Amino acid sequence: MRVTILGAGAMGSALTIPLTDRGNEVRLWATEYDRNVLNMLREGKVHPRINVTIPSEVALYEPEELEDALKGADVVVVAVSSEGLLNVLNRISGLVECKQRILAVTKGFVKVNGRILTVAQAVKSLLGEEVGFVYISGPSIAKELASRSYTNVIFNCEDREVALELKKAFETEYYRIGISTDVIGAELCAALKNVYAIAIGVVDGLAEAKGGITMENAKATLFSKSIGEMAEIVKNWGGEAETAYGLSGIGDLLVTIRGGRNGMLGRLIGRGLPVEGALNEMARKGFGVVEGYVTAKVGYEIIIRDRGLKPSRVPVLYNTYRLLHEGLKLEEFLKEVL
Amino acid sequence: MRVTILGAGAMGSALTIPLTDRGNEVRLWATEYDRNVLNMLREGKVHPRINVTIPSEVALYEPEELEDALKGADVVVVAVSSEGLLNVLNRISGLVECKQRILAVTKGFVKVNGRILTVAQAVKSLLGEEVGFVYISGPSIAKELASRSYTNVIFNCEDREVALELKKAFETEYYRIGISTDVIGAELCAALKNVYAIAIGVVDGLAEAKGGITMENAKATLFSKSIGEMAEIVKNWGGEAETAYGLSGIGDLLVTIRGGRNGMLGRLIGRGLPVEGALNEMARKGFGVVEGYVTAKVGYEIIIRDRGLKPSRVPVLYNTYRLLHEGLKLEEFLKEVL
Repeated sequence: MRVTILGAGAMGSALTIPLTDRGNEVRLWATEYDRNVLNMLREGKVHPRINVTIPSEVALYEPEELEDALKGADVVVVAVSSEGLLNVLNRISGLVECKQRILAVTKGFVKVNGRILTVAQAVKSLLGEEVGFVYISGPSIAKELASRSYTNVIFNCEDREVALELKKAFETEYYRIGISTDVIGAELCAALKNVYAIAIGVVDGLAEAKGGITMENAKATLFSKSIGEMAEIVKNWGGEAETAYGLSGIGDLLVTIRGGRNGMLGRLIGRGLPVEGALNEMARKGFGVVEGYVTAKVGYEIIIRDRGLKPSRVPVLYNTYRLLHEGLKLEEFLKEVL
Repeated sequence: MRVTILGAGAMGSALTIPLTDRGNEVRLWATEYDRNVLNMLREGKVHPRINVTIPSEVALYEPEELEDALKGADVVVVAVSSEGLLNVLNRISGLVECKQRILAVTKGFVKVNGRILTVAQAVKSLLGEEVGFVYISGPSIAKELASRSYTNVIFNCEDREVALELKKAFETEYYRIGISTDVIGAELCAALKNVYAIAIGVVDGLAEAKGGITMENAKATLFSKSIGEMAEIVKNWGGEAETAYGLSGIGDLLVTIRGGRNGMLGRLIGRGLPVEGALNEMARKGFGVVEGYVTAKVGYEIIIRDRGLKPSRVPVLYNTYRLLHEGLKLEEFLKEVL
């Protein structure tokens, strides 16, 4: 297949490896933010975020060459950040034809005309309802995928046949693809995991502050409750609890708490920094946007406030929101979530 | 309440902390294997496995004083190892009265008259069907509980009222107790987690052997699949899938893979040692019995061979059994379980 990947960040670039290994014709389009990376790739240097060189057969496209990059592609992979999503969708609407499949790895919620939408909703609202949309979820650290380490993901699509068609074209021995029709469930888990990773990070920070005493019992409890809440929320939105109990929920949350900004923010707060101070500290270290911080508020609004899911059904989400945005004290937070 | 704890190992001794904090009258009976520990406790020294001193109001009993230790107790806590279980149950049968509740923290399967039984089944078969039996499950590292770090567990009992009665007597701010009636589900998860911890350890070992490349994607996949299999097995035995998806499954497996013998055995095998060699290496380091190694075989026999659950429904259990006991090659193992 001819595949155009939009975004030369970690995941977009990592996907060039299995896709070329399977013999697809792969193009990689860089956004304005990827210019430096693109230059490095052109010089045959390793990608700074995934530590590998990109296969030489991958065609590289400049930010100005979007139209060329898309021409004749069978599949368009959306691999930009959630902040960049709207911009890119607006630019490609009109260029994408309905026979082209859209495969997205972008996670989170986006605001379109004042309404908060999931990635699938945003894609359909901007590119048309009839577009064949597949959402990738599951535990996939880009660097590991790029080094051909076993990575199992789920291709989620309301139309099972479309997901199967892409699975057949992209699956390799190390890039293993399962199928689900629960797009909304996968999206909710992917977005909310960042909030839960902050909550779990708080416990890590507390343990560090105490020194010497681990708090693995508390962490495991919080992890297990987080998965239960994801299942609750997914069901409330018409999805399947099994999505939370599989690779999209358990699997993805597990790799998310191994590192990353969300856990880092949680740890700083757990060590005793006020939220404001923790965010400043993150910014000082060059970690700008912490997705879970934003998602905690959006999640509270659309899940609890607007849809009316009771806080007592999702205490970790609710109290992480209160901790981050309403000044809830750390000790109170712990009592409420454990 | 008057509570007699049988076994002065890590968990039996740790439980003295919340139980005395809640004002219960606690006795701690030591088995023959606990003599050294008992002497240390009598001298006011810290318990070598949980790093705390036992509250001075706890009455300590010698191995020979079992009858005295049990007299007038409202609750008997069985906290011996699974290897010691039969012996202790035989010794207390006849001494235990039916008004006394039995609370067990022992995990695993035991052989009684040639039949393989769970702990609950063994207790009922040796102490009588009418005994009020409660099984504790969930993520609880004894050392953390002993240091009053947040620990959430489940009290499982077919009779909800009995579980509630003990919860009311034992719960503290940091020792938090949920209730479930799914005893068999909790028991299966608690026993099988050790097998799954070996499987996950294998991936850790592989990553170590490769050097530099983490395999978190593969680990998260295996973890998530393990929980799915637990749910499958629990349902097959008449329990509830939710048990696997909660503290007894997800929670306990999470703390189990943080350390311990099962993960260690898996890691050695993942690094390339043959199973025999890995077991010898463990023995050399003083780690005798690896529970998951034994449980893999027993689990295969009673779940797949005898009950007829298809291997394709539980590939991780089945192939971990084959890896450990039937010479399955490491590369084959990975292909089958991922």
